[in-house]
Amino acid sequence: MTIQTAIAALATLLGDGLTRSKSDLDLHGRSESHFADCPPDAVVYPVDTAQVAAIVRTCAAHACPITAWGTGTSLEGHALAIHGGVVLDLSRMNRLLAVNAADMDCVVQPGLTRVALNTALRDTGLFFPVDPGADASLGGMAATRASGTTAVRYGTMRDNVMALQVVLPDGRIIRTGSRARKSSAGYDLTGLFVGAEGTLGIITELTLRLRGQPQATAAAVCAFPTVDDAVAAVTETIQMGVAMARIELLDTASVAAVNAHSGMSFSLQPHLLLEFHGSDAGVAEDAATFGEIAASHGGTGFDRATRTEDRNRLWKMRHDAYYAILASKPGHRAIVTDVCVPLSRLAQAVAETQADIAASPITGPILGHVGDGNFHAILLIDPDSAADRTAAEDLSHRMALRALAFGGTCTGEHGVGMGKLGYMADEHGPGWDVMRQIKAALDPDGIMNPGKVVRG
Amino acid sequence: MTIQTAIAALATLLGDGLTRSKSDLDLHGRSESHFADCPPDAVVYPVDTAQVAAIVRTCAAHACPITAWGTGTSLEGHALAIHGGVVLDLSRMNRLLAVNAADMDCVVQPGLTRVALNTALRDTGLFFPVDPGADASLGGMAATRASGTTAVRYGTMRDNVMALQVVLPDGRIIRTGSRARKSSAGYDLTGLFVGAEGTLGIITELTLRLRGQPQATAAAVCAFPTVDDAVAAVTETIQMGVAMARIELLDTASVAAVNAHSGMSFSLQPHLLLEFHGSDAGVAEDAATFGEIAASHGGTGFDRATRTEDRNRLWKMRHDAYYAILASKPGHRAIVTDVCVPLSRLAQAVAETQADIAASPITGPILGHVGDGNFHAILLIDPDSAADRTAAEDLSHRMALRALAFGGTCTGEHGVGMGKLGYMADEHGPGWDVMRQIKAALDPDGIMNPGKVVRG
Repeated sequence: MTIQTAIAALATLLGDGLTRSKSDLDLHGRSESHFADCPPDAVVYPVDTAQVAAIVRTCAAHACPITAWGTGTSLEGHALAIHGGVVLDLSRMNRLLAVNAADMDCVVQPGLTRVALNTALRDTGLFFPVDPGADASLGGMAATRASGTTAVRYGTMRDNVMALQVVLPDGRIIRTGSRARKSSAGYDLTGLFVGAEGTLGIITELTLRLRGQPQATAAAVCAFPTVDDAVAAVTETIQMGVAMARIELLDTASVAAVNAHSGMSFSLQPHLLLEFHGSDAGVAEDAATFGEIAASHGGTGFDRATRTEDRNRLWKMRHDAYYAILASKPGHRAIVTDVCVPLSRLAQAVAETQADIAASPITGPILGHVGDGNFHAILLIDPDSAADRTAAEDLSHRMALRALAFGGTCTGEHGVGMGKLGYMADEHGPGWDVMRQIKAALDPDGIMNPGKVVRG
Repeated sequence: MTIQTAIAALATLLGDGLTRSKSDLDLHGRSESHFADCPPDAVVYPVDTAQVAAIVRTCAAHACPITAWGTGTSLEGHALAIHGGVVLDLSRMNRLLAVNAADMDCVVQPGLTRVALNTALRDTGLFFPVDPGADASLGGMAATRASGTTAVRYGTMRDNVMALQVVLPDGRIIRTGSRARKSSAGYDLTGLFVGAEGTLGIITELTLRLRGQPQATAAAVCAFPTVDDAVAAVTETIQMGVAMARIELLDTASVAAVNAHSGMSFSLQPHLLLEFHGSDAGVAEDAATFGEIAASHGGTGFDRATRTEDRNRLWKMRHDAYYAILASKPGHRAIVTDVCVPLSRLAQAVAETQADIAASPITGPILGHVGDGNFHAILLIDPDSAADRTAAEDLSHRMALRALAFGGTCTGEHGVGMGKLGYMADEHGPGWDVMRQIKAALDPDGIMNPGKVVRG
């Protein structure tokens, strides 16, 4: 048994940095979503890059699968070791290695979480803007090309990772990118490893771009008669060049769930939640511009929140919306969809999805990052009901195909993982073969998170 | 002779879409920089993607090198067919295929130039922001990951290419990316082909991100006692969150050259040239903020230009600066350097470069995109003087090593081409081997722009 041989060698190498306790295996065999539990054969806890490289070399020698683990907050089962082997938990590599304030960048280990980073940066005048909601590890966020509420202004992990240190499947350690703001020096390896979901190597260090904490921040909420009206207001505002920092859509079903769970009292209509960053005057001007545009599209109850506690309550509510929706049907689990379409098709995509859900036996509130055209239906299923699961999977399937037909993608920010592998051929056509060729070139034995992103 | 066999087959395939006239070969054997002329064996002019694929399949069958050509404005000899074979001139594939105004994107053929695109977009309220100075083809700009004066605000081609159609070295046609604003659906193939300099395939279609034409635009100039003061003002302004659209540095020698060539009358000091985009109030506030910061760093003569003709004159002068510097020494050619360093090291990098140039027999004015840490020394050489060339190459060499020592890159925006291949090992270490593995996986016979980006 090659996996067992590898684990024996790793135990010698790592001592108590390797565990096979049932509780630890179980903990690293679960996901936040609906996938079946899948405990690995062992969990290793490296403390530095050299140890990661030694682990990878040992696994390579025995063809033992390695699956990296950050905080386990993936919604697509990325970190489940579906071919067995070891889960490489990076939580002990969680240091902030450097903050270069003048250059507005920092260097972190992959196990550091985004909230811990921003807490450490608080007094520097800088912050790291990417915010997927969960307090994910920065390595995991890079590996899944995460984004979230602020991508409309600050971009995704693709735009905010400047450089990486990566341990390759054969144990070589490379550095990609540099601390220069831009470069034309060859293939964009940083961009290749960001979003590769740990299938090409293990990220052991990240250089991240930081932003200046805005002088002023204002949040706002606004209700609309229809999703179409809300989207029209967003499109017009973006075209005016107003750089909103967040623009979140909650459909009526989502509003009902957060009202119940977070003690809010929104009217039962589609809502936009917004945030503006800038100077005092700039934020006031941006909010006023949006307010006028919103009113012309039937927006009502436009309300600005400039006090920190009000803003924090609003975004905590938004971040908790997934749990609010789960709580609305006790005992249910979620199949979370993640399509992203061109903005011009967003209203139609949401409307068709709502109609499809309404015609099904499933409850599925919708929320999304409307400035990017990215939205999620949270499809609630009774985990013991095969009928529920089938209905939800069918809905999810039609959403993905609809997004592709509209020129979009099956996953805007959650990644491929286990849930979207079936759409890669449809989405990429022969381009998926190119991904497979790259995988085969760098990981010929397929030991890095096998079964994810590419097949075979 | 396999190249001759390929050309015979291509002549049958293309008719007058292939030429071997001396004038055409000479035209496609020249570069804008100091590299020796290198005419190809033939030039082909495909009219559509299917024809590109047929050309590539024919060349693949005979192991004939293919080098793509846009407008020939590369400064690093990218488009020179140094191993012979065919140059594939994309100038007949220059159509704007679609403008999706609501989505703020467009689809273009690779031979369309950036000025032609912006002319076509004039009445849409949108524009394509990347501006390398030369009226380059958009395919060439993508292939070299070009940027230029506006990257500090709008990013480089990496940030503004959403999707590509590419003909692979075996003739397969793939599409990468989508029209969604973001995606986590697997490896970022778009990012891999952007900056690959035609070594992995031929870009035959690009989907580009557009921006709203700003409501207000203001340009400004400001003189500083030293480059250090100018850089300090820029750093402080960026940290304040002021989103300048352009921030260009001219050192005193560059100022002298543009005064003589463009009839300007700047004081003989380092200057910053700036542009602000936004609302009327936002632009006024940004300019005022910068003016205050500049004054605190010894900035003088701060002058805003809001009239279109004044702004256009300023940026025409900046774009002509390369030619102004060339004109300052008639009969000379330029070795253009392109280092990019973290902003905190920029002043030191410029100062050490200026001292190095002053101690040499070479004239070398410096200008740069100071918001990105990217600057160019235009090293003027008598093309008949071996001593000049050696001195300039030595200066260029020390600049590149200095940039790498400072955590930067040997090429911020011009690309590797022929001029920077010698620094790839230093800059990327074992990461360069990964580039070679990717090249070998996709182009095992090495027919795509051989001799560029990777070796062997």
